[in-house]
Amino acid sequence: MADVDRVEIEAWFRELQDSFTAGIERFDGRGVFTSDCWDRPGGGGGDTRVLADGHRIEKAAVNVSAVWGEAPERFAQVAGVPSATFHATGVSIIVHPHNPHAPTFHANLRYFEVDDGVAWFGGGADLTPHYLYAEDAHHFHGVIKACCDRHRVADHAAWKTACDEYFFLPHRGEARGVGGIFFDRLTDDLPDVWAFSQDLGKHLVDAYVPILERRSDMPYGDDERRWQELRRGRYAEFNLVWDRGTKFGLETGGRIESILASLPPRARWEYAAEPPDGTAEAAMVELLRGEPRTWA
Amino acid sequence: MADVDRVEIEAWFRELQDSFTAGIERFDGRGVFTSDCWDRPGGGGGDTRVLADGHRIEKAAVNVSAVWGEAPERFAQVAGVPSATFHATGVSIIVHPHNPHAPTFHANLRYFEVDDGVAWFGGGADLTPHYLYAEDAHHFHGVIKACCDRHRVADHAAWKTACDEYFFLPHRGEARGVGGIFFDRLTDDLPDVWAFSQDLGKHLVDAYVPILERRSDMPYGDDERRWQELRRGRYAEFNLVWDRGTKFGLETGGRIESILASLPPRARWEYAAEPPDGTAEAAMVELLRGEPRTWA
Repeated sequence: MADVDRVEIEAWFRELQDSFTAGIERFDGRGVFTSDCWDRPGGGGGDTRVLADGHRIEKAAVNVSAVWGEAPERFAQVAGVPSATFHATGVSIIVHPHNPHAPTFHANLRYFEVDDGVAWFGGGADLTPHYLYAEDAHHFHGVIKACCDRHRVADHAAWKTACDEYFFLPHRGEARGVGGIFFDRLTDDLPDVWAFSQDLGKHLVDAYVPILERRSDMPYGDDERRWQELRRGRYAEFNLVWDRGTKFGLETGGRIESILASLPPRARWEYAAEPPDGTAEAAMVELLRGEPRTWA
Repeated sequence: MADVDRVEIEAWFRELQDSFTAGIERFDGRGVFTSDCWDRPGGGGGDTRVLADGHRIEKAAVNVSAVWGEAPERFAQVAGVPSATFHATGVSIIVHPHNPHAPTFHANLRYFEVDDGVAWFGGGADLTPHYLYAEDAHHFHGVIKACCDRHRVADHAAWKTACDEYFFLPHRGEARGVGGIFFDRLTDDLPDVWAFSQDLGKHLVDAYVPILERRSDMPYGDDERRWQELRRGRYAEFNLVWDRGTKFGLETGGRIESILASLPPRARWEYAAEPPDGTAEAAMVELLRGEPRTWA
């Protein structure tokens, strides 16, 4: 048996769902998350909470799921065990603001357990701006690094690099955004990893909302909105083509609306839409195509 | 050696590109295709022609490519030969009209040749309406079936079924549209298949433009536009998650802008956006989730 308690973990993920959605509602001032609870035929279920068309938030989804049952074949391969009953619980967060100057935010925390005692944590948080504001990236990475620095089990340098490598679109040669951290399959020191995961979860609002506050009332027009939608096309490309969680969900018959709740509210594709040299849009693309930077 | 001439095939694909783009420009009345010729580092190149923001056409792409070189490993697997030099030429067409009542159109014709003499044709044409007009589906399938019926090598029933099976989103349990025909890896009777392919290519304007004429001036408002963008989200999902040509191109380093020129100009994702019962939108979804119909 794992030396953490999956019942406690799930309960805490639900608390995080409550506190994060409350933080976003407070910031938005108008939008309210609706809750859509669902059952999984093979065991378990979830609570998908979505805010649409808020005052400052265009679309946000904060999902908790706790599912169990016979592991599908692909799952058994991933777990490295021949066949097993699994328990999986997680919370995933995506926020797409209205204002093109305000970045998209994504985070998730997840815990897996297979009935032979194999258990692990995974998760992360990352930021996807459409326009580069270095102070935003510094702030975001700073909060996350400070959180890692409080925990012996957290390898910030490795997880920052893992995030840069994971959230990358090979077919575009572009990073999805300015990164954050990404960790997966942490099987050792589970109580300590769990303490770290909770600390990270508690600081997600601090990592993101101050940036939202700074950017959400900046003026913008059709040109910035077009750029935001083009970049959201890239976001859709990443999630649909490369994201392992999305692919796994689509291939194994997961709950589609919950899996695809991360997709942007609107996206746009134009042929060869390269921004002119010297513009803020070109500076953003240049950053995404360059070597990942150290922000914290 | 194959008993068709790849130089002649490529030249004909370029003629089809000229005639189809001329047909669309005539219909549109304002938009003009721009031509973007490109070279492939490993050999060959293409001509990507795009019309954006026309009077009645929102985005259209008509691409010809003729590429050759060392076959990538995945290609050798698909071809069923260990390693080879290949030649591939094709024309692909996508048209996304402005009016939500006017369907999206897609077609392509392609020819592959591997240096040990293996050669084949593939291609097809299919229609993706956002609102169901049975007469449009009847017309489209009728023109294509009549074309098949003129050629001993064309198996309309099998190719119609193959189209329904191919343009299907398993994760949604929905067809992409009302189908058409899809054929691939036709290695026998190449001169006859080539004659059929040319006949099909010549009738693509007849299959599609009369439908465009009927639908492009119908009145619509924000609700219909929203529905069109939601359905275009599905189109993007199909192309990015399931389309073999797109996946192959993304994984083997194809020319990204040409491969992704098929993506819709705008797309939208809302959580669990099921249309209310009894609406035209619900009728469309019901059709896409049901058994494929016989239209011709």
